Amino acid sequence: MGDIRYPLSFNQYTAKTKWTLRQAIEGCARHGVTGIAPWRDKLAECGVKTAAKLIRDAGLKVSGLCRGGMFPAADAAGRKAAIEDNLRALEEAVGIDARCLVLVCGGLPVGSKDIAGARQMVKDGIAAILPHARAAGMPLAIEPLHPMYAADRNCINTMAQANDICDELGEGVGIAVDVYHLWWDPDLKAEIERAAKTDPRRIQAYHICDWHYDTKDRLLDRGMMGDGVIDLPLIRKWVEDAGYEGYAEVEILSSRWWDADPDDVMRLCIERHRTVC
Amino acid sequence: MGDIRYPLSFNQYTAKTKWTLRQAIEGCARHGVTGIAPWRDKLAECGVKTAAKLIRDAGLKVSGLCRGGMFPAADAAGRKAAIEDNLRALEEAVGIDARCLVLVCGGLPVGSKDIAGARQMVKDGIAAILPHARAAGMPLAIEPLHPMYAADRNCINTMAQANDICDELGEGVGIAVDVYHLWWDPDLKAEIERAAKTDPRRIQAYHICDWHYDTKDRLLDRGMMGDGVIDLPLIRKWVEDAGYEGYAEVEILSSRWWDADPDDVMRLCIERHRTVC
Repeated sequence: MGDIRYPLSFNQYTAKTKWTLRQAIEGCARHGVTGIAPWRDKLAECGVKTAAKLIRDAGLKVSGLCRGGMFPAADAAGRKAAIEDNLRALEEAVGIDARCLVLVCGGLPVGSKDIAGARQMVKDGIAAILPHARAAGMPLAIEPLHPMYAADRNCINTMAQANDICDELGEGVGIAVDVYHLWWDPDLKAEIERAAKTDPRRIQAYHICDWHYDTKDRLLDRGMMGDGVIDLPLIRKWVEDAGYEGYAEVEILSSRWWDADPDDVMRLCIERHRTVC
Repeated sequence: MGDIRYPLSFNQYTAKTKWTLRQAIEGCARHGVTGIAPWRDKLAECGVKTAAKLIRDAGLKVSGLCRGGMFPAADAAGRKAAIEDNLRALEEAVGIDARCLVLVCGGLPVGSKDIAGARQMVKDGIAAILPHARAAGMPLAIEPLHPMYAADRNCINTMAQANDICDELGEGVGIAVDVYHLWWDPDLKAEIERAAKTDPRRIQAYHICDWHYDTKDRLLDRGMMGDGVIDLPLIRKWVEDAGYEGYAEVEILSSRWWDADPDDVMRLCIERHRTVC
């Protein structure tokens, strides 16, 4: 298995500000990239049916739809609204034949200091949509986010937490492994092994970028693969050994790269994917 | 134990830019704060002997000296220099009768992507200074730092890692529990219990501040207690139940609070310590 290099998928937020979904699809086709990961706001602009046709006609596969989740809310009405929104996200994921619906699970409800409570709300939310996901044949992929987003974006911050939820809820829910969020975790290797041991299909997605040594911004300073400190071949080996089959999805949220020419960014992604991932 | 409120100690970096160590000591005395935590750069400006006398005359206790650590380096000479610097830090900690020497252990050597290797260097570094710390009767306190500092400041990012090192190295090395770095960790309660069970004195220091919901800066946006999302009474209860006896050391690295009048900041720390901690 040592020589597998996962094909590249282009998460469209890598060119968030300059490309529509149609332009991102055309960009992938132009550069020979075979996978794409749309975001729902861009998908809504394009329309699901139109997007599905464009993606199909370009010969692309969808490595994942970003994103469902955001389950915690201050009251029951808010949590119900979140679940309804996730059901719409599921339909959209089915509509573009996504490999999975990525879940960024949500942080603390406004005014709350109860992170354990928020984590329970996440589990309850996933449990509520899971029967629909199973019926639709659409895997859910919990994406643990870096602990620096625990308050405002996602209270699921380690692979261990994600594995625990998967163990409890069973078939139909898996994990998106994003090196940016997880590279620092001393238990990462063990938890990837645990995922594979329990269910070879548990790892639903593999996201790449890099962590700048002296990260300047909490949100928009992700690095191009090779420009940071993450040992990408090592983590790739771990997911390979876990039997992951799918794309290496490049997702770089970065004001620097958003300012650049998206064609240049895509060319560099392709080159770095080849040389350092 | 439910009513214990740890006395307040003032980490001088809460007023880093406007107060010398002498001014911080005078501020504590003026406001009735009984603990202080100097930083080595400020201590060097003042001189260890002078500082020791000022602290003693003001009737203050030193909850910890910030900081030793920074063990990893690209070559053996660099690692040796780090150990020598830590031995000087130990002498300084003894000189001001500190409760412990806080260790911010260090991140990746420049150019390295080997976080496991850096973690080994940290363990080796602590092991190298530990006999000296024991001989001096000066406890070492590993301070796990938030995972967002794993690359550039400290590759020890969870209480579990710190407990593992303490287990391995034995008597004389403990942990500084800082809510800012650890609040998000789903294993925090269990790891505090583990620390207490192994050695009731393992928790050497307890640092407080708050995490802003929408933290703007990775380094200098720590919050005043009560202005963020950390459940401070809950974590205080955990360290109480663990038998911790010592100070609640307020350490707020914040460009906002650094710009304010340090006397106002100290007054607010005292008030919040009374009302929300």
